Amino acid sequence: MDLLIENIRGLVLATDNPSQPLCGSAMRQIPILKEAYLFIRDGIIYSYGNMPNKGVERADRVIDATGKFVFPSFVDSHTHLVFAGSRENEFVDRINGLGYAEIARKGGGILNSAKLIQQTSEQQLYESALQRVYEVITTGTGAIEIKSGYGLTTRDELKILRVVRRLRENVPIPVKSTFLGAHAIPGNSTREEYVKKVIDEMIPAVADQGLADYCDVFCEEGFFSPLETSMIVEQGLKYGLKPRLHANQLSRSGGVQVGVQHNAISVDHLETVGDEEIEMLKNSSTIPTLLPAAAFFLDMHFPPAKRMIEAGLPVALASDYNPGSSPTGNIPLVIALACIKMKMTPSEAIVAATINAAWALECHNELGTISPGKRANVFITKPMPTINYLPYAFGSNLVETVILKGQIFRGG
Amino acid sequence: MDLLIENIRGLVLATDNPSQPLCGSAMRQIPILKEAYLFIRDGIIYSYGNMPNKGVERADRVIDATGKFVFPSFVDSHTHLVFAGSRENEFVDRINGLGYAEIARKGGGILNSAKLIQQTSEQQLYESALQRVYEVITTGTGAIEIKSGYGLTTRDELKILRVVRRLRENVPIPVKSTFLGAHAIPGNSTREEYVKKVIDEMIPAVADQGLADYCDVFCEEGFFSPLETSMIVEQGLKYGLKPRLHANQLSRSGGVQVGVQHNAISVDHLETVGDEEIEMLKNSSTIPTLLPAAAFFLDMHFPPAKRMIEAGLPVALASDYNPGSSPTGNIPLVIALACIKMKMTPSEAIVAATINAAWALECHNELGTISPGKRANVFITKPMPTINYLPYAFGSNLVETVILKGQIFRGG
Repeated sequence: MDLLIENIRGLVLATDNPSQPLCGSAMRQIPILKEAYLFIRDGIIYSYGNMPNKGVERADRVIDATGKFVFPSFVDSHTHLVFAGSRENEFVDRINGLGYAEIARKGGGILNSAKLIQQTSEQQLYESALQRVYEVITTGTGAIEIKSGYGLTTRDELKILRVVRRLRENVPIPVKSTFLGAHAIPGNSTREEYVKKVIDEMIPAVADQGLADYCDVFCEEGFFSPLETSMIVEQGLKYGLKPRLHANQLSRSGGVQVGVQHNAISVDHLETVGDEEIEMLKNSSTIPTLLPAAAFFLDMHFPPAKRMIEAGLPVALASDYNPGSSPTGNIPLVIALACIKMKMTPSEAIVAATINAAWALECHNELGTISPGKRANVFITKPMPTINYLPYAFGSNLVETVILKGQIFRGG
Repeated sequence: MDLLIENIRGLVLATDNPSQPLCGSAMRQIPILKEAYLFIRDGIIYSYGNMPNKGVERADRVIDATGKFVFPSFVDSHTHLVFAGSRENEFVDRINGLGYAEIARKGGGILNSAKLIQQTSEQQLYESALQRVYEVITTGTGAIEIKSGYGLTTRDELKILRVVRRLRENVPIPVKSTFLGAHAIPGNSTREEYVKKVIDEMIPAVADQGLADYCDVFCEEGFFSPLETSMIVEQGLKYGLKPRLHANQLSRSGGVQVGVQHNAISVDHLETVGDEEIEMLKNSSTIPTLLPAAAFFLDMHFPPAKRMIEAGLPVALASDYNPGSSPTGNIPLVIALACIKMKMTPSEAIVAATINAAWALECHNELGTISPGKRANVFITKPMPTINYLPYAFGSNLVETVILKGQIFRGG
């Protein structure tokens, strides 16, 4: 089965697969091939080039993309999209001036989601999460990470991770799975007891059942300390789970340092980083992943994206899709927020949500650029003049046609 | 032709038509009828009530809205959606740190749009604007105001207003037309010359051809002074054009005062208002209309919505859809911005975008609530638990089915 897309106004990230994520100023010059074609064979990117497409074999199907751009699918390397219920009432409580602690006292926060997960069947969890994955595919996401962390008991953490496994088996995009037992301390445990349970009971059980690729910890004041984070990360590594961390969201928690020390694949959030953290990241392979939809929805300050890019770091973007702090998985809107609120250029933001996010999810050999041999997960936009139009038209869904493994995706 | 929508989870603003806009604390308690039906006959809202819908006549068509909400369509009382080209490159210039003046020197700003309008045929302008109207209908807009103001010559202002008239004749929602010749000073005129031209030439020509309902002025430092605004408004009134004003966007320009003095229908923007302006608005029938998408996109501070509501004002919301400062007409996203950034509650924001916006566009007897006798412009949402979910899920389009004059709207 061959697919030819022709007359493409701009083929975004048409390039050899880079040997590293795009760092600093390299993020500003996104490669775009103008007046291009893209040839897909058996679900794989086979070739591309300038129009006219002489010498390209006849394809079974031809799409005319006049006036349109073709992008490699977005990679969303940070979500919590298996959850039960929604938390719009906490949103209203926050509007009405309630603080985090008051909302927690009213039964809100992560513990609220945990209670709901415990009351929800695995089948219901699967169905609601499946719907979310199908929705984010329509806004251009072509690979996704999903975390546990709303279980907070061994039984419920495993339940979430089984849902993630079932999603991986059934949705048309790659799914990676992260164990985030250390997301919050459940009400019926001391911190010491719970850390011990994560280490002694949860990680071995998760690894034994092959349910996770990564181990994550919410390293933050009031959640898990750098020392506890280290202990959990080390146990994860012992069981084959590579670390990726929640770091420096609310305070300079030491999360970046723990992450870099343990070669975390990614440290995520980074609303509060100083020169020390940026310096450490420069001398590491750890990707700094920013989640502007969460900063926006919580109406907090944003990570210093420009400083990180100016320091030469390979910044990535992800949605943080979750019911408390980022109830969306809409990556074009995340890109718009990155541009409007963090002053990333459209080029930087698109690089951050594609190739750099692919590095943050270790799928850079399969996704993130238009490179021959990669999986043909791409999307065609509506007609637009330049890539700058994507974040500019922040209220429109400009993703018109989604192609996954060379097949046109049709709803769910 | 009858249409029955049944099993509605919540019928929003099901109420007798209020005799005034909803003011202050009245905005917090949006009327919602739970487990309801809505009966539409010949394009008009005929009746509503609780399920089961005994006694309701058989309808030609029945829609099951189990789990869903039905809203009166949004009214967008402030747009500039007839324009040529897009200005995403200025957006990138701003990201790169260029100021307003530098962008203007590079040929950006309103004068850039004016130049493009002058080069674009009336047919092209119509086609692109038509597409925009069809897009905003899909996000729930059921009535719209459109301004001129990118012409800045008599010929081109009339051209834009003829496009608005043609839209009014061809789109399935009510359209009102505003003459905004006083949007900027064109480069080839002095301020005095241009004000004189607006007054002596443009307003008579616009009125003579019956091309506008309203007259608007950008009352702002560097644009039009309160005195000039007064002169233009008074000439407009003489020619039957009621005033609505751009006021207090960038500075405390005196625009609110001029508006209230002349019984403007609405004063719009209000990013910079103090107690004096709020006090004046309290003693007036002028609606304060806020445009948070512009403040967001320009990354400026937001109007003090809560203070205005606490003062008892009937705040309205609109999109400001235009190519420079608000390239979207997505009202659900405007509502989300109002909640997230201005701390309006979902109830307040929805009231502001429906019944209060209908007052700001003088179509409150036809639209803005679910009241028998009004035009049946409504939309059915996707399933959602409460109205709070609408701004909470800020990255999703929750408008599932649009009904205009009792007919299901099918794309454009």
